[in-house]
Amino acid sequence: MSEAFWKTSLSAVGQNKILIRGYRVQDLMEGCTFGDIVYLTFRGELPAGNEGRIIEMILTSSTDHSFLAPSIDTTRFAASAGIPLQAAIAAGVIALGEHHGGAIEQCAKILQDAVKAGTPAADIIRSFKERKQRVPGMGHPIHTSDPRTVKLVAKAREWKLAGPHLTLAEKIGAELNLPLNIDGAIAGIISDIGISWHYGKSFFIISRVVGLAAHAVEEVTCERPFRAIDLSDVQYDGPAERELPARYRRNES
Amino acid sequence: MSEAFWKTSLSAVGQNKILIRGYRVQDLMEGCTFGDIVYLTFRGELPAGNEGRIIEMILTSSTDHSFLAPSIDTTRFAASAGIPLQAAIAAGVIALGEHHGGAIEQCAKILQDAVKAGTPAADIIRSFKERKQRVPGMGHPIHTSDPRTVKLVAKAREWKLAGPHLTLAEKIGAELNLPLNIDGAIAGIISDIGISWHYGKSFFIISRVVGLAAHAVEEVTCERPFRAIDLSDVQYDGPAERELPARYRRNES
Amino acid sequence: MSEAFWKTSLSAVGQNKILIRGYRVQDLMEGCTFGDIVYLTFRGELPAGNEGRIIEMILTSSTDHSFLAPSIDTTRFAASAGIPLQAAIAAGVIALGEHHGGAIEQCAKILQDAVKAGTPAADIIRSFKERKQRVPGMGHPIHTSDPRTVKLVAKAREWKLAGPHLTLAEKIGAELNLPLNIDGAIAGIISDIGISWHYGKSFFIISRVVGLAAHAVEEVTCERPFRAIDLSDVQYDGPAERELPARYRRNES
Amino acid sequence: MSEAFWKTSLSAVGQNKILIRGYRVQDLMEGCTFGDIVYLTFRGELPAGNEGRIIEMILTSSTDHSFLAPSIDTTRFAASAGIPLQAAIAAGVIALGEHHGGAIEQCAKILQDAVKAGTPAADIIRSFKERKQRVPGMGHPIHTSDPRTVKLVAKAREWKLAGPHLTLAEKIGAELNLPLNIDGAIAGIISDIGISWHYGKSFFIISRVVGLAAHAVEEVTCERPFRAIDLSDVQYDGPAERELPARYRRNES
Repeated sequence: MSEAFWKTSLSAVGQNKILIRGYRVQDLMEGCTFGDIVYLTFRGELPAGNEGRIIEMILTSSTDHSFLAPSIDTTRFAASAGIPLQAAIAAGVIALGEHHGGAIEQCAKILQDAVKAGTPAADIIRSFKERKQRVPGMGHPIHTSDPRTVKLVAKAREWKLAGPHLTLAEKIGAELNLPLNIDGAIAGIISDIGISWHYGKSFFIISRVVGLAAHAVEEVTCERPFRAIDLSDVQYDGPAERELPARYRRNES
Repeated sequence: MSEAFWKTSLSAVGQNKILIRGYRVQDLMEGCTFGDIVYLTFRGELPAGNEGRIIEMILTSSTDHSFLAPSIDTTRFAASAGIPLQAAIAAGVIALGEHHGGAIEQCAKILQDAVKAGTPAADIIRSFKERKQRVPGMGHPIHTSDPRTVKLVAKAREWKLAGPHLTLAEKIGAELNLPLNIDGAIAGIISDIGISWHYGKSFFIISRVVGLAAHAVEEVTCERPFRAIDLSDVQYDGPAERELPARYRRNES
Repeated sequence: MSEAFWKTSLSAVGQNKILIRGYRVQDLMEGCTFGDIVYLTFRGELPAGNEGRIIEMILTSSTDHSFLAPSIDTTRFAASAGIPLQAAIAAGVIALGEHHGGAIEQCAKILQDAVKAGTPAADIIRSFKERKQRVPGMGHPIHTSDPRTVKLVAKAREWKLAGPHLTLAEKIGAELNLPLNIDGAIAGIISDIGISWHYGKSFFIISRVVGLAAHAVEEVTCERPFRAIDLSDVQYDGPAERELPARYRRNES
Repeated sequence: MSEAFWKTSLSAVGQNKILIRGYRVQDLMEGCTFGDIVYLTFRGELPAGNEGRIIEMILTSSTDHSFLAPSIDTTRFAASAGIPLQAAIAAGVIALGEHHGGAIEQCAKILQDAVKAGTPAADIIRSFKERKQRVPGMGHPIHTSDPRTVKLVAKAREWKLAGPHLTLAEKIGAELNLPLNIDGAIAGIISDIGISWHYGKSFFIISRVVGLAAHAVEEVTCERPFRAIDLSDVQYDGPAERELPARYRRNES
């Protein structure tokens, strides 16, 4: 028999029945936290310990970072233009790129590859230095001791969820003399609880969607439509006003 | 003093400090569930009862509906084209429109306006009939007794979170002889716990982002790139092959 | 036989053959301007007169409006976060909402409905006044005599493309003592050349995509990554720093 | 003086004045084609020869490829969910990723780097073979002799716009015994007319937006809302229905 065009192992739907990874959705609603559901969806099985709780802490850590985050600003401008809520949120989600949460995926991939291969911290640092790139997950422009990172790492250790990935991440930070940042902490912890780096950015996305929703509603309910920069704040450094070249000056009528 | 261009009541950031609605983020991480955080973000205060738990049930209810949901299909096609995870998710979020989760916002607005004004169910139904429109939040193409709705409504009552909005929604359904669907149940419950209809779609969006992430990763890791329809499955009903009109046949060389 | 799931009258593809509305794509490339193609795609037939040329004028009119346009700002913030070009452009496209180009669709619908039904300008104005709404397509916050509008309207008349829709739009403006703005001019002209209001926003979108692409590339090549607002430019007006309520202060360890 | 937060060389706006690269927009509307404008925007100067015409041919080549293109399918599903036109188009734009038009950017970068450095075709091919990757811009799953590519290359030569980049692209194809595809042809030609690879995808995006708009309108006007896959077309290969583990079966009431 040929392969179906539409194929999935994630969920199944029938009349009055929805299965998520085999479990009935109403059972999950009754028995699980949202953190458990995220773990189940990405791993295929429910947590055996506090994995769901540490995921809820991760999701709580990154909902908002005020206008200092390009994702928030993106959503504010888009929302001001008169669009549905989900479209304003989607614009902000698009902005969660390589320089904005993307370090979770990058760092988790490095950690997972290195732990599997037994690569030491020094080798990782050297390979980034050779390419004149910074190791993702280390350092922060504002926070010298990010309270989110401190809390996450402490709880991961307390709940025995920390393992070789988080340890490696901390070692890299120590050798670089840089604090592990929130992206690096999340990368280490999700790797230690067995989640593939492919899902790395998801944790930031799920979390930030809450903040984006609130900023979109605040924009629409508290500000005038069409958020506009003042003309006097714009610096134009292109060519001065000029005439079209002769060949473009048509006498058309 | 003039108004600042960037103004918010949602969060504040300083060095090594992030406040969400006035609370330090590390305290929220330690003491609250993700459901509490959603409530706090949208309402401004932490729950006094089980509001956070019912929000987690809502978030658990709608993560995935297999390929029967256009949002999932949108993300699958987009992800197959070779784009970052957040972009694939954003494409699916865009698809959470008027016919796909939008009923939460529409229904919540109706319920909140009606409860405030004392409008009875019969009047609401009549006004929709006059415009030949269906009341949002009622009926489902597949589920005659949606297990998600049943569970949500039961818990809202058990936890004393149900009030006039959910009651009104159920009354409308009863008079129309249609089951309250998942959108209608969410609309009634969030209204009863005091959340503005402006946030209505947010609950579906936060929830569905989990499923979209999983479908995007499944597409990338289990399927070949560039999901393509087979030529033989396409029906073309436009004009047959034809020649350009004479005036467009230039002899240009 | 049952309806195909995938059905279209727009284009057909076979081996070494692509038909657009029945014409071979290579013939269109040879004989037509891009303006002709837009007209063909939306109308089904090639222009009989200067319709393609007026469309190119419309497309030229709206590529960029500097940072005064939320769409441009949206793309700049998104692009700064390290994402592919098409994702940065998509973020800006999302922002082309009701208050930002949306007036083309709204105004074209009004004009097309009114011309069909014979509704006079005064009736349209009255119905908007009753709903305390502004008629779309009239007035501009900066431009008292928008050079784009002036040029478009002059050429539409010179090329005998103007008809009852543009005339009605101008009449509405005259009675309101407001200049027709660029959205209103485009709405009138596309209606007169027979294009459905459903396509209204498309003209702005196709045009603006050029400017969004240029702004995204300028952001990436001329600015530092992660466009960040300065902390000192943000005004926070939410609750002051506070302690969690007692019930959230868990002694968990 | 400090750098302005908002800075651009692309356009300037004042009352009743809009400059694009220094030219008044009304002059551009009068004297230029849309192809000229795209060239001006990306290069900073107006074309000296047929560059604007070849750009219009490129824009005409790629508006639509029926349901065989994931971008089209993405927009169809999104549009069916009840969203504004620009949001449906944005969803399709997001899907123009590495495997779907992305080869224009990749190939243009390779060609521009190689021509500058004098790298021969054989070296490029070898470096891709070593990484077990395919050279972008070569070969097509359906078209053995793509009529778009044939036409573009012929006109570029006829108009003396072809140069070392297109020649190198053809050489790579010849050595691989693969036809240059539409992405590779566009990459070679835009490089020869002096446009940076950063803009590569833009040509496909501007073009495809026309087709996406038409497909979105066709979906909304010709199909029922909420495009849904039939249950029977879905293959589920996840775990069978199962009970929650004991620790998740709460006795909560």
